[in-house]
Amino acid sequence: MTRYAVIGTGAVGGFYGSRLVQAGADVHFVARSSAAAISELGLEVVSPTGEAHVHRISAYSSVEELPRCDVVIVAVKSTVNEAVAPLVREVVADSGEVVLIQNGIDCEQLYRDALPDTVQLTGGLAFISSQKTGPNQITHFDYGDLTLGRFEPGYRPAAPTEHMQMVRDQLSIAGINTTLVEDLLLARWRKLVWNVPFNGLSVVLDAMTDELLRVDSTEELIRELMSEVRVAAAADDREIEPEFIDLMIDATKAMVPYATSMKVDADHGRELEVDAIIGNAVRRAHRNGVDVPRMNTLYQQLQFINGRIASGESNDHA
Amino acid sequence: MTRYAVIGTGAVGGFYGSRLVQAGADVHFVARSSAAAISELGLEVVSPTGEAHVHRISAYSSVEELPRCDVVIVAVKSTVNEAVAPLVREVVADSGEVVLIQNGIDCEQLYRDALPDTVQLTGGLAFISSQKTGPNQITHFDYGDLTLGRFEPGYRPAAPTEHMQMVRDQLSIAGINTTLVEDLLLARWRKLVWNVPFNGLSVVLDAMTDELLRVDSTEELIRELMSEVRVAAAADDREIEPEFIDLMIDATKAMVPYATSMKVDADHGRELEVDAIIGNAVRRAHRNGVDVPRMNTLYQQLQFINGRIASGESNDHA
Repeated sequence: MTRYAVIGTGAVGGFYGSRLVQAGADVHFVARSSAAAISELGLEVVSPTGEAHVHRISAYSSVEELPRCDVVIVAVKSTVNEAVAPLVREVVADSGEVVLIQNGIDCEQLYRDALPDTVQLTGGLAFISSQKTGPNQITHFDYGDLTLGRFEPGYRPAAPTEHMQMVRDQLSIAGINTTLVEDLLLARWRKLVWNVPFNGLSVVLDAMTDELLRVDSTEELIRELMSEVRVAAAADDREIEPEFIDLMIDATKAMVPYATSMKVDADHGRELEVDAIIGNAVRRAHRNGVDVPRMNTLYQQLQFINGRIASGESNDHA
Repeated sequence: MTRYAVIGTGAVGGFYGSRLVQAGADVHFVARSSAAAISELGLEVVSPTGEAHVHRISAYSSVEELPRCDVVIVAVKSTVNEAVAPLVREVVADSGEVVLIQNGIDCEQLYRDALPDTVQLTGGLAFISSQKTGPNQITHFDYGDLTLGRFEPGYRPAAPTEHMQMVRDQLSIAGINTTLVEDLLLARWRKLVWNVPFNGLSVVLDAMTDELLRVDSTEELIRELMSEVRVAAAADDREIEPEFIDLMIDATKAMVPYATSMKVDADHGRELEVDAIIGNAVRRAHRNGVDVPRMNTLYQQLQFINGRIASGESNDHA
């Protein structure tokens, strides 16, 4: 039987991991601060699609305690990738697979470099609105689809692996819709069309999605940022149709008002995923000779805010 | 004897007006909310160059109470120009002069349209760090120079008027250095080189000048915004030397940490001078066919924050 590890039992890892348990899989969770609570009480997922309380969960407080696993799902924040990548190598089976479910772009290579060639690496994108709301509780607000794409250096398109197909099939039993794609880079750019403006502006302007779209000037700025992401993607030979911007805006207007993951981090004084979500995209554009002044402005502002968070100062010193 | 009016007895109008009184001029102040305190207690200017307590001040709570004056100094916030301009017409003598001391660009025409042709109009730029710190108290932190330039429609360069020379001479008696320029538009663009990045970012990032320059990413953004202002000025046929950017950065690093006027407004929940300081400059650039994406991003963000201030919400809803 395939053995899974989930490293990072937060809003994303806890959600998909508990769904795998529900589908009958053998899943081992690393939850740094709440392993004891999860072992004792199970994982509770509060969701509009029905509450789920998953008992008998194997939870550990560190990666070192994990048994060797066939599929290691990494769902930690991108800010700790450098610490986590070498540990993952010790956990994954020789012909196993690492699935990195993270926002942003250009985080995979670090794992690729840390893993032996026999281990496959897959990038994952979670289209989900969820939050960790207690030591053993995750609240799922909306959506839940997963996209998986095999990672090859340079983001060369590649056919899905057998492990990816297995993950998809098992999640499907638990009601999760997983799409396997051959072009992970395109998937990452498409997701950035939403993530760059909404994550960035939600922190800089301390605002929910609905507030940002209620004001003409910020809706205009969001559209302009989305256009810059399209231009940056095009410089990577990844075409995103212009109508995608209207689609994202309309979908967000229809969404329940939403605090982005970056805003949740800022509100809790936690380090922001500035590089994965914006910095790497700006650098990729610049390497391709493309100017993205609005994205870069947002990146520069977020670095300032991130520095303030790191120094322990509040955002509000009035 | 020349009779002066000062409309707006705040950090700027109160400072220069009290200096004129000290120089022996006949000055009549409009201080909407603190006229009684000023009439009774005089104007107190706390300054590193020495405290000044100016007694026997004629202060009124509305423009309508003013006697007719030869020189009307308007030092209100640009956000109330539409209300103030028609009142000024009733106060200024037929061959008098209106001196509009305000930050930003493209605020003069509104006054020009409201005034008879016989009245001269002058634009003023205050290079001063000061704040109203009590009903009859102004605290002067640093600087204090004034620049005056005659306004002609289209910002056509024009020789100084006799009234301007008189203002300069009288302020000089009170130790204020006033420069008369023929090219008001160039003076306005040069001042915007500082005002656009520092006023804008101090509000969006809730930061003092020294904090913004202590972080590489924001110093870089400030320099890029300054470059965009230079480009916008050039499109108006106004050349600003590239070294001016280093000069402004170095001078600001040497300054006492400073809360910009826009940040002071934001901290007090008061409407921001978004159009005078940034919006008008962006529109002028666009009319001249020049793209200023960073300035526009800042403008769009500030409009959002200004809307939140207008709706009475705090900037901090955590």
